[in-house]
Amino acid sequence: MSCDFLRLAQPGVQKLSPYVPGKPVDELARELGLEPASIVKLASNENPLGPGEKALAAIRAELAELTRYPDGNGFELKSKLAERCRVTAAQVTLGNGSNDILELVARAYLAPGLNAVFSQHAFAVYPIVTQAVGAEGRSVAAKHWGHDLPAMLAAIDENTRVVFIANPNNPTGTWFGPAALADFLAKVPERVLVVLDEAYIEYAEGDELPDGLDYLAQYPNLLVSRTFSKAYGLAALRVGYGLSSTEIADVLNRVRQPFNVNSLALSAACAALDDADYLQRSRALNDAGMKQLEQGFRALDLQWIASKANFIAVDLGRDAAPVYQALLREGVIVRPVGAYGMPNHLRISIGLAEENARCLDALGRILARG
Amino acid sequence: MSCDFLRLAQPGVQKLSPYVPGKPVDELARELGLEPASIVKLASNENPLGPGEKALAAIRAELAELTRYPDGNGFELKSKLAERCRVTAAQVTLGNGSNDILELVARAYLAPGLNAVFSQHAFAVYPIVTQAVGAEGRSVAAKHWGHDLPAMLAAIDENTRVVFIANPNNPTGTWFGPAALADFLAKVPERVLVVLDEAYIEYAEGDELPDGLDYLAQYPNLLVSRTFSKAYGLAALRVGYGLSSTEIADVLNRVRQPFNVNSLALSAACAALDDADYLQRSRALNDAGMKQLEQGFRALDLQWIASKANFIAVDLGRDAAPVYQALLREGVIVRPVGAYGMPNHLRISIGLAEENARCLDALGRILARG
Repeated sequence: MSCDFLRLAQPGVQKLSPYVPGKPVDELARELGLEPASIVKLASNENPLGPGEKALAAIRAELAELTRYPDGNGFELKSKLAERCRVTAAQVTLGNGSNDILELVARAYLAPGLNAVFSQHAFAVYPIVTQAVGAEGRSVAAKHWGHDLPAMLAAIDENTRVVFIANPNNPTGTWFGPAALADFLAKVPERVLVVLDEAYIEYAEGDELPDGLDYLAQYPNLLVSRTFSKAYGLAALRVGYGLSSTEIADVLNRVRQPFNVNSLALSAACAALDDADYLQRSRALNDAGMKQLEQGFRALDLQWIASKANFIAVDLGRDAAPVYQALLREGVIVRPVGAYGMPNHLRISIGLAEENARCLDALGRILARG
Repeated sequence: MSCDFLRLAQPGVQKLSPYVPGKPVDELARELGLEPASIVKLASNENPLGPGEKALAAIRAELAELTRYPDGNGFELKSKLAERCRVTAAQVTLGNGSNDILELVARAYLAPGLNAVFSQHAFAVYPIVTQAVGAEGRSVAAKHWGHDLPAMLAAIDENTRVVFIANPNNPTGTWFGPAALADFLAKVPERVLVVLDEAYIEYAEGDELPDGLDYLAQYPNLLVSRTFSKAYGLAALRVGYGLSSTEIADVLNRVRQPFNVNSLALSAACAALDDADYLQRSRALNDAGMKQLEQGFRALDLQWIASKANFIAVDLGRDAAPVYQALLREGVIVRPVGAYGMPNHLRISIGLAEENARCLDALGRILARG
């Protein structure tokens, strides 16, 4: 009895390298024998504000229903999102985080012999979900760390079914403007599904960045994915959503697991949508923290990639891996991005003022050692 | 601009009919203008005890970490499960409900040209996850409503990669004993993954049913799936698990989404495993409710399928659909199982004594009308 269950797995699955998340605080605490409370984690683009009161209250109110299955149709959250996003509920797909939405797209529309186009230095989940279904991932060289949309257009061929674009992009924080998006959408063949990942869009105020929702009516091949894990502060609960034509939403809703989003997530997300104050404070904290980190980098004579998100990629001008390890030993967790083709950068999430200060301080001391 | 995004979907996906869950209380309340509190739901095999105190306490303690991503490796829950289940943590796969485990198996091991074998009248998710990846689902005729294991063996061919068996089975409540399982496992080809779905195993006391864990060491092609949604009372949170050889677990862990199980689910599941009292009370309530429903059916001169789970399928001897509708109008939600090839049955989850009584009372009145 010793069959090879790796070899028996689907070819795409056999070659999968799982996503490597930011190191959890408890894991580092176990490894180094540190107090979890003494550790600063700026590694997963989490909201440093802590939980919002409205979301907490909604969760507490929902606890009486813990033994009940969630509403598989997510009636209330879909209704609320539809109203906010100027679409119908039938255009909404709810996901177990927006990761789930990205995966549903791949499972519905990709397969061996087909391909998906995405940018170099883009979110690792795009190649992973593509690989998992045995399709080809086409990584298009970035330009100034950001998406080269004309080059991405040129990479589309007759076997391309999906293009993943992110605005702002993770882990670079780069972005493109409304004119670039409009031009791109106008030129993408109508049979190619454009996934516009706006996981960080709530941090981008003003009109430098397009609002993907403005293009939904015109482009039935557009899906905008968003999340409650960042500006809304609900990463622990796993809830995200896709907005698209009803046709695409219908397909994704067939593929998704019947109870993919848990009850507490559904309730908390509804409450979070109504908590304008939390969102505003999240943005203000992020703006201030971004300035603080930029100033700190300037003082350390470091370059960085300008970012519209809740993180910033700093260029150490040398292999960042040893610095990442040294920061861990100081109780500071950031994100190494060597696997994203950025071996000299570290991605640092914007934290509270004191967390940012501790990170900058540790970074300064480590770099001073040479 | 009007491409057909249903036709562009993968062939298996195009033909998918989504899982139809039990009707949510809020949905019926909206439709009939009823008070949600006046509705009795015995439709989704949920735990009628309500939330356990230990699980609630664990959730409340975890709320401070709402903005943080879950531990993607589920270190604590895996460690605890490994200890309880006499396996290593590397043999555990955590799922967003055990539905997630079933789907991971299909995505890893099935594809067009391959097939999965399951029983007639078995859980709808087996054919759905098989269809979603374009594989062939082979439904084997049931025997006395239960699995015909010899016939299932005979249905296995060179393209079979997965066999789904459930003990007890949903929606029939039927079961097989240790000798039948041992014989089956000994005869299944070693390259065929046997998924033994034990979602309801905690309700089956004594040794009439085998414990799937007893066979893991001997059969590297066995995966036992279990859930916290039933006897542990955590359906709202979505958490289940698979136990298998490390090789299969490694493959499934590559395919699963990095944060597929939310933080509150991870914490609550750990606490639920330590709440022996809740589990014991769940079983006692279930035993009493099963007897109550059986007595009620006897009084109504109805037949039923003997069940070892937390539900019972009653045979109305006539088309059950109108009775289901009439029960809804009485504020009682049960589960029609026509889609399971059981048009004359209703599946009734065991509830609290007063819920069972209300269901029996309404059923009696409806049947008396003829």
